[in-house]
Amino acid sequence: MLGLVFDSILKEVSIDFVIVGFQANRLRVLLLKWKGTEKWSLPGGRIYVDEPISVAAVRTLEERTGLKNVFLRQFNTFGNTQRYLHYSREETLGYVKQAIGEDILQLQNLPRTVSVGYYALVDIEKVVAKPDFYTDECSWWDVSDVPKLLFDHNEMIEVALQTLRREIRHQPVGNLLPEKFTMNELQNLFQGILDTELDRRNFHKMMTGYDFLIKLEEKRVGGANRAPHLYRFDYKKYYEALNGGVSF
Amino acid sequence: MLGLVFDSILKEVSIDFVIVGFQANRLRVLLLKWKGTEKWSLPGGRIYVDEPISVAAVRTLEERTGLKNVFLRQFNTFGNTQRYLHYSREETLGYVKQAIGEDILQLQNLPRTVSVGYYALVDIEKVVAKPDFYTDECSWWDVSDVPKLLFDHNEMIEVALQTLRREIRHQPVGNLLPEKFTMNELQNLFQGILDTELDRRNFHKMMTGYDFLIKLEEKRVGGANRAPHLYRFDYKKYYEALNGGVSF
Repeated sequence: MLGLVFDSILKEVSIDFVIVGFQANRLRVLLLKWKGTEKWSLPGGRIYVDEPISVAAVRTLEERTGLKNVFLRQFNTFGNTQRYLHYSREETLGYVKQAIGEDILQLQNLPRTVSVGYYALVDIEKVVAKPDFYTDECSWWDVSDVPKLLFDHNEMIEVALQTLRREIRHQPVGNLLPEKFTMNELQNLFQGILDTELDRRNFHKMMTGYDFLIKLEEKRVGGANRAPHLYRFDYKKYYEALNGGVSF
Repeated sequence: MLGLVFDSILKEVSIDFVIVGFQANRLRVLLLKWKGTEKWSLPGGRIYVDEPISVAAVRTLEERTGLKNVFLRQFNTFGNTQRYLHYSREETLGYVKQAIGEDILQLQNLPRTVSVGYYALVDIEKVVAKPDFYTDECSWWDVSDVPKLLFDHNEMIEVALQTLRREIRHQPVGNLLPEKFTMNELQNLFQGILDTELDRRNFHKMMTGYDFLIKLEEKRVGGANRAPHLYRFDYKKYYEALNGGVSF
């Protein structure tokens, strides 16, 4: 199967994904477990010779998550000669062999691979995660509990989160929330990404000052406290505001 | 010459540079003119098989500018299948043949090339620009006067400048200035990058509030107005402040 498409893909370039979700007030990333091993990695993909990288990214992300129209951003290209952090090249090739159970001469003969890293911001509830050819399990991991991954994937997560934090005023982090959410949930999201406490009064004041937040009649019921109002985004206005930068 | 190293370089990946300077209150970029043509492009380079991309970037930038220790930032990887905007693949190969005057079969047989884009922020006065194997002239062009470049290089400049503008609070744009500068020159720099006017009083107040700006006894003499004080950066403090973001 791998052999079949081998001639139609770029050999020296691949893509990898840091797929970010938010659940129970924690940032999570989607990881795949390699067949026949206890080793995990980020989801990744190959680029066809006649395919723009941006198109390969959308295609592969849909294959892994079932989602179209996801916010996807190229954040860094990883170009070290040896892209192995916790397991050596030999160990890694052993795991690959275990996972695909076939001759991997083609892979062993590959030159080094440069990987273009993308992060995606998704609503976990909407994701139907599917393993790929190498893997047989998908799970969401709390970003602070991620195990030692294959290749340089721990570094990729680190760089993706740094980028997201640095550009939080310009990135549509609202994509991490379900369609309707409370103001506290929105604040928890920002706090989770930045890993810091924000002043509640200030945050609410700044956010309600934006016209991209629509306050609904509907309230969140069933909680211990007084039922809070629900909000949703006007995404057109939200994206326009992000161009200038959203303060909070 | 090209043939000699052909087997030792990555075939599907290259690097290109948007080298940004600031002169006469205008942002400028360094362009190279291809031998025997009137066509220009950004400076670029190849990556050796056993060389990290980041190392190839530093090496090539030094070859082109004579500078070590320049601020260099990977900003985007360009992965379209056809990376030609103003001149077709055939036209471009014609210019390449004109420039290197030898058999370019090897180049014609290359698969598409993915380019990792870097921008560099330099002090123009310190640059000793050198053409490469394909080119015989280097010039600084005002970013608003850049001609139609080979490949997708006009797009690269656009994306680099967008990135710089979006991240201006976190990027060491002070590197674009000579060692000593007046407060007005600093303000002109920010205005030049953002292409907008800033309130003078506010800007000066914010900037002089930072401990990374050192006011010198020395003054800029010879101007029409009262001689203004000169400043320089404490670069250690400047870089620390950029982590948190510099407001102005």
